[in-house]
Amino acid sequence: MKTNEVLEKLRWRYATKVFDAGKKISGDVWEDVEESLVLTPSSFGLQPWKFIVVTDEVVKERLVEHSWGQAQVADCSHLVVLTALQNLNEDDIEKFIVDTHEKRGGELVALNPYKEMMNGFVGSMSEAEVNGWAKNQVYIALGQLMTTAAMMGLDACPMEGIVPAKYDEILGLEGGRYSTVLACPVGFRSEEDKHSGLAKVRYSRADVVERL
Amino acid sequence: MKTNEVLEKLRWRYATKVFDAGKKISGDVWEDVEESLVLTPSSFGLQPWKFIVVTDEVVKERLVEHSWGQAQVADCSHLVVLTALQNLNEDDIEKFIVDTHEKRGGELVALNPYKEMMNGFVGSMSEAEVNGWAKNQVYIALGQLMTTAAMMGLDACPMEGIVPAKYDEILGLEGGRYSTVLACPVGFRSEEDKHSGLAKVRYSRADVVERL
Repeated sequence: MKTNEVLEKLRWRYATKVFDAGKKISGDVWEDVEESLVLTPSSFGLQPWKFIVVTDEVVKERLVEHSWGQAQVADCSHLVVLTALQNLNEDDIEKFIVDTHEKRGGELVALNPYKEMMNGFVGSMSEAEVNGWAKNQVYIALGQLMTTAAMMGLDACPMEGIVPAKYDEILGLEGGRYSTVLACPVGFRSEEDKHSGLAKVRYSRADVVERL
Repeated sequence: MKTNEVLEKLRWRYATKVFDAGKKISGDVWEDVEESLVLTPSSFGLQPWKFIVVTDEVVKERLVEHSWGQAQVADCSHLVVLTALQNLNEDDIEKFIVDTHEKRGGELVALNPYKEMMNGFVGSMSEAEVNGWAKNQVYIALGQLMTTAAMMGLDACPMEGIVPAKYDEILGLEGGRYSTVLACPVGFRSEEDKHSGLAKVRYSRADVVERL
């Protein structure tokens, strides 16, 4: 893809304020969006996350009031709720090592140094720090999702402004190992959304990039 | 861009372990990478970051020992150091509001509710929380950078494994408002890098995506 085409897509995207509730993403395209979520990179490759895709209109409606009233949660085609694994531990690392071995073959013991490095990294942190680290990874997923959606010609609206505890309750995550971090409605912008015509507000390159 | 082409690029990318030190990204292409960094979305649009682009070979070499010895920092074409604004405050919000007004026109006072919402949001958090939030935004930038680089056919290697304080020292950030969070060498993979041929390790879609 030419670099200017990539930029064109990044300029085309914006945090969509009004979705066309009547326009739904086709099943085939959505499968590819999900696949892009699966492919998200993460620290050590540990993937400390789960993505909940909500299309149930009743559930979407219930989430609006816990999303600072933002109607995009209900009006989008597919709502992605990005959750983080809590208290990642040695068993999670073991599961990842087993999966690595299954996919790449070779001797399982050859992965011991990698496993020990990860155990050492996680073991050096408090629970709060481990959860903060997992949350950071979820923001990578959000970044990739927004960019990928733009490349695919889909609209999205990243949302920090939600009540994670209420999301957890409504999505049935309570008592489980995953907690809501972010929401990202995906779909198609409404022609009525005046925000799509507004100038993009970004600081100049000289303000945010420094060459050394 | 077709969705399967996007996936093809995401499968092509990997955390590059060995860069071809002799291959440099052209000036034109790099300008577009920087522009993609500028275009990164952030919460409220506040862009609490600065991106330091290091091509000075001496500086790159000095950073290797503070990057768990990872040679990619020196061998890449362009090293991007992603930094977060510390202690974002009302003046930063005012600056953003002024910039918004300059780019979009209209009445400045019309932006007051938006300004007050942001001040309320930031004011409700401790300094550590504000800095944690800014750090999260930097992870969005990392996600977009990795995805964008892949679309452009460039290789990259996200790195949490660095010593931020040492980076700050070497990059002259000490005493300033920005602190190092992450590094991301960008360039071209070496043909010698055996990691490019390894199977990608990701959990199955059934493991990480749940439909509701």
